[in-house]
Amino acid sequence: MKILIIGATGTIGSAVVKALNKKYEVISASRNNDVSVDIGDPDSIVSMYRSQPKLDAVISITGNATFGSLDNLSDDDFTLGLENKLMGQVNLVRFGRKHLNDGGSFTLTSGILALRPQASSVMLTMINSAVEGFVRSAALGLPRGLRLNAVSPPMVKENAKKLGWGNGGVPSVEVALDYVKAVEGAMNGRVLASF
Amino acid sequence: MKILIIGATGTIGSAVVKALNKKYEVISASRNNDVSVDIGDPDSIVSMYRSQPKLDAVISITGNATFGSLDNLSDDDFTLGLENKLMGQVNLVRFGRKHLNDGGSFTLTSGILALRPQASSVMLTMINSAVEGFVRSAALGLPRGLRLNAVSPPMVKENAKKLGWGNGGVPSVEVALDYVKAVEGAMNGRVLASF
Repeated sequence: MKILIIGATGTIGSAVVKALNKKYEVISASRNNDVSVDIGDPDSIVSMYRSQPKLDAVISITGNATFGSLDNLSDDDFTLGLENKLMGQVNLVRFGRKHLNDGGSFTLTSGILALRPQASSVMLTMINSAVEGFVRSAALGLPRGLRLNAVSPPMVKENAKKLGWGNGGVPSVEVALDYVKAVEGAMNGRVLASF
Repeated sequence: MKILIIGATGTIGSAVVKALNKKYEVISASRNNDVSVDIGDPDSIVSMYRSQPKLDAVISITGNATFGSLDNLSDDDFTLGLENKLMGQVNLVRFGRKHLNDGGSFTLTSGILALRPQASSVMLTMINSAVEGFVRSAALGLPRGLRLNAVSPPMVKENAKKLGWGNGGVPSVEVALDYVKAVEGAMNGRVLASF
């Protein structure tokens, strides 16, 4: 299997690369990898797919959106969240469908804040919920046995530590297993959550 | 109570006006009402609130988004859904908060397609899910006892008939009761669904 991973250098992304690259051909993409992409820029997504034909799986573990309460979110914050974490991932599916081999899969990333909201997670709860809605519906109309799922990661242990939030969270190596399941399994239109 | 209803002339909107205007002061707003507003235009929302100070409740039963499968949705369709049904309703809350009296409430509208997706409901499932995510999170940070909820209407009987979809659906007079409950009740951050 030839798997393109976008956001391959992040905490979860690195763990997903490790979990998959012994068994499969993994291509790492991010803003700084050899395969470069900015998911906030539709043209950049189109170029990336042109350079990477005949994929079996696309995994997106990326997307910017601002943390903050409603009082602290500006018009620009809303634009960023909608254009980057939401439409960036939607466009990975829209523009990537024809580049996937029959039976190929897309796996996007939402997040625990979709269903466990906080006062300061307005943008993330909204965007993650939208990503999950997109997955539920768009999965139903894909041709050639293509599949589309999302992983909803919990707080990752390594990130919690970095941020000084204590010893909570799930190790990235465990979160990575949901991405492996989404790629290797048969599910479609599902949100995989390990919380 | 002084209640501003945006989208007061639609099938559900008319039923909600009827359900509330015997007991309360109801102000009807839409593109064509005396109180005119285009929720896709942030300036129009700001002007509307300036002309309607000291509200006790704002009900939004409006928002455009295109029906269609992923293949049939253009860039413009995505822009319309995000700017109108999603950000239009988000902006009703963002720009309206300071105009509501203490203890006032916002009630937005999502829809059954959020949780009952179809291949042709990509935009509506995504947008309705985002509206519900926004409500879940933004409700947690509102000041002065303000409340924020959404109603998720099912297919409305009168609309099903108009569209030639048979005798199914819930009569608008019943759907309207969820909006009454959201205004008169004490719930916050909830999605009221009668299906």
